[in-house]
Amino acid sequence: MNQKLGRASIRLEKPVYILNSASIVGSKEGEGPLGLLFDRVGQDDMFGCKTWEEAESTLQKEAVGLALEKAGLRPEDISYVFAGDLLGQSMATSFGISTYQIPLLGVYGACSTCGESLALGAMSIAGGFADKAVCVTSSHFASAEKEFRFPLDYGNQRPLSATWTVTGSAAFVLGAERGVKARARISAMTVGKVVDYGLKDSMNMGACMAPAAASTLEQHFIDFAGQPEEYDKIITGDLGKVGQRVLIDLLRKKGIDISEQHMDCGIEVFDAASQDTHAGGSGCGCSAVTLSAYILKQLEERNWKKVLFMPTGALLSKTSFNEGLSVPGIAHAVVIESL
Amino acid sequence: MNQKLGRASIRLEKPVYILNSASIVGSKEGEGPLGLLFDRVGQDDMFGCKTWEEAESTLQKEAVGLALEKAGLRPEDISYVFAGDLLGQSMATSFGISTYQIPLLGVYGACSTCGESLALGAMSIAGGFADKAVCVTSSHFASAEKEFRFPLDYGNQRPLSATWTVTGSAAFVLGAERGVKARARISAMTVGKVVDYGLKDSMNMGACMAPAAASTLEQHFIDFAGQPEEYDKIITGDLGKVGQRVLIDLLRKKGIDISEQHMDCGIEVFDAASQDTHAGGSGCGCSAVTLSAYILKQLEERNWKKVLFMPTGALLSKTSFNEGLSVPGIAHAVVIESL
Repeated sequence: MNQKLGRASIRLEKPVYILNSASIVGSKEGEGPLGLLFDRVGQDDMFGCKTWEEAESTLQKEAVGLALEKAGLRPEDISYVFAGDLLGQSMATSFGISTYQIPLLGVYGACSTCGESLALGAMSIAGGFADKAVCVTSSHFASAEKEFRFPLDYGNQRPLSATWTVTGSAAFVLGAERGVKARARISAMTVGKVVDYGLKDSMNMGACMAPAAASTLEQHFIDFAGQPEEYDKIITGDLGKVGQRVLIDLLRKKGIDISEQHMDCGIEVFDAASQDTHAGGSGCGCSAVTLSAYILKQLEERNWKKVLFMPTGALLSKTSFNEGLSVPGIAHAVVIESL
Repeated sequence: MNQKLGRASIRLEKPVYILNSASIVGSKEGEGPLGLLFDRVGQDDMFGCKTWEEAESTLQKEAVGLALEKAGLRPEDISYVFAGDLLGQSMATSFGISTYQIPLLGVYGACSTCGESLALGAMSIAGGFADKAVCVTSSHFASAEKEFRFPLDYGNQRPLSATWTVTGSAAFVLGAERGVKARARISAMTVGKVVDYGLKDSMNMGACMAPAAASTLEQHFIDFAGQPEEYDKIITGDLGKVGQRVLIDLLRKKGIDISEQHMDCGIEVFDAASQDTHAGGSGCGCSAVTLSAYILKQLEERNWKKVLFMPTGALLSKTSFNEGLSVPGIAHAVVIESL
């Protein structure tokens, strides 16, 4: 039996396998430290499209197509796709994956979407509701700036606490049977709740999200009676350098020290000093492409055996921001192990 | 064992019970044909708040609170809340349900969200991942007009094919055990895919969504080798009068006649002639409040024994609309039976 554990966690009876995955990124991400690891790097950030939104849809489409190809599967083999993005009404998803005609369960968790989609995808398989599932998410620097902040042409100055939205998408094919090409396995998860410390600075999303990351991590260790040392890495999505400090400090006050294990995809994906990305990368695509290109590779090579992958989301909209509301956070954690 | 059936359907091994539910609506909905059946009707549509978005968040908060109260449960008894709305970045949800501190799995399916959240909520329980789950969604006429169309003050003329977004929210408490107050049970579901006939008229969403409704219904009858006659009602979310005609015609061409069984929540919720709502009601809240107040009541009174509840979503955003893209549709179907 699958086991509901504590307040917010699940231990799967049988692990769910990540059969394969694929990542595609923009040119800036291709020039970053992980550049050589991505499956595809665009020559520019339009990907042959007329609008940024269409470009982001194309990222999702290509990521899913390539992940299926690498897994040796066709769209008809997939029961459901769990997908979402940052844009209003998940526009990149609606127009990105319709071509595959796979039944769609749309998710929204801001930049925690990769974690949420993997958690739900794994549940759908472990519960016997699906044979195979695809989880996909994306973000695009220019479509996100347009959605949330200023017109790019305005050239506003970015504070050092700001993050740079990753242009990229990654797709993950999940299945119940290991097969020959599986990259890793999902064995457990902790679902996050909305945590709102009242912060209102959309140019410091790391600080807005860190309390949610701390909440989910604390709950995870309570539910599993676990310790940070059980993981080779505890990986947040896009806290960046400011959020990382806040997270480590918040957890220390709870008696939990993750300073040895902590890694943040936003810090890994860019070289902040040379790429002028300030606090780090962000966006749904940030944790997704880092998982596909880097984290799963480390697990495949058994450099790491068990990681806690926890994308973090800032529940921000331009309407709520303009109405003076805070930026609540949410984070969903997935336990991923080497085979 | 739970059974994956055909391309896109699931038959649950054990039914999942709708332990209780609650609906809250605005003044116009309260004056409509179902007015006396709603749990709460607002005196105005601001619900004591300063903004429409905050009012919509309050709707979700009150619906969840009242549903829990009616079910005799506390927030701590609920494993997960599956929630979403129409606003950019699901703003009504982010600010509406945080007060309960229940782990949140955010969903987005436009106005199909009620169906999607019930499907995922039922899966989470039937798969052993949750003890109890809450599914909630909302819409608000004024926040939706602001999000998708024109400023209200502009007073634009609405074509007869336009629908009127329902101001309302409903929450459903799901559980594995029947208990004493359960209202109905969920036994099966069919997950929809994105269907895009290329229609671009956001003032005729019924026609945009009808092909998706037809696709999910056809798939449902294929997967279950079923017939429309097995259902007392086949209920769409918010196709309205135009969409209803398109749906019935599209299915007739496939040899499926649902004209006897079809009912649309958007047509039921308002009296179009006297309330000037043109094609009918729409919005995530439309199908949700109709399910809670009217459909479940009919099932409780055993006037109906088995219905197919299928909210329909138009995957529209103001950005995609302004960029000249089409309005794709999606529809998720849930089989709900009397006890």
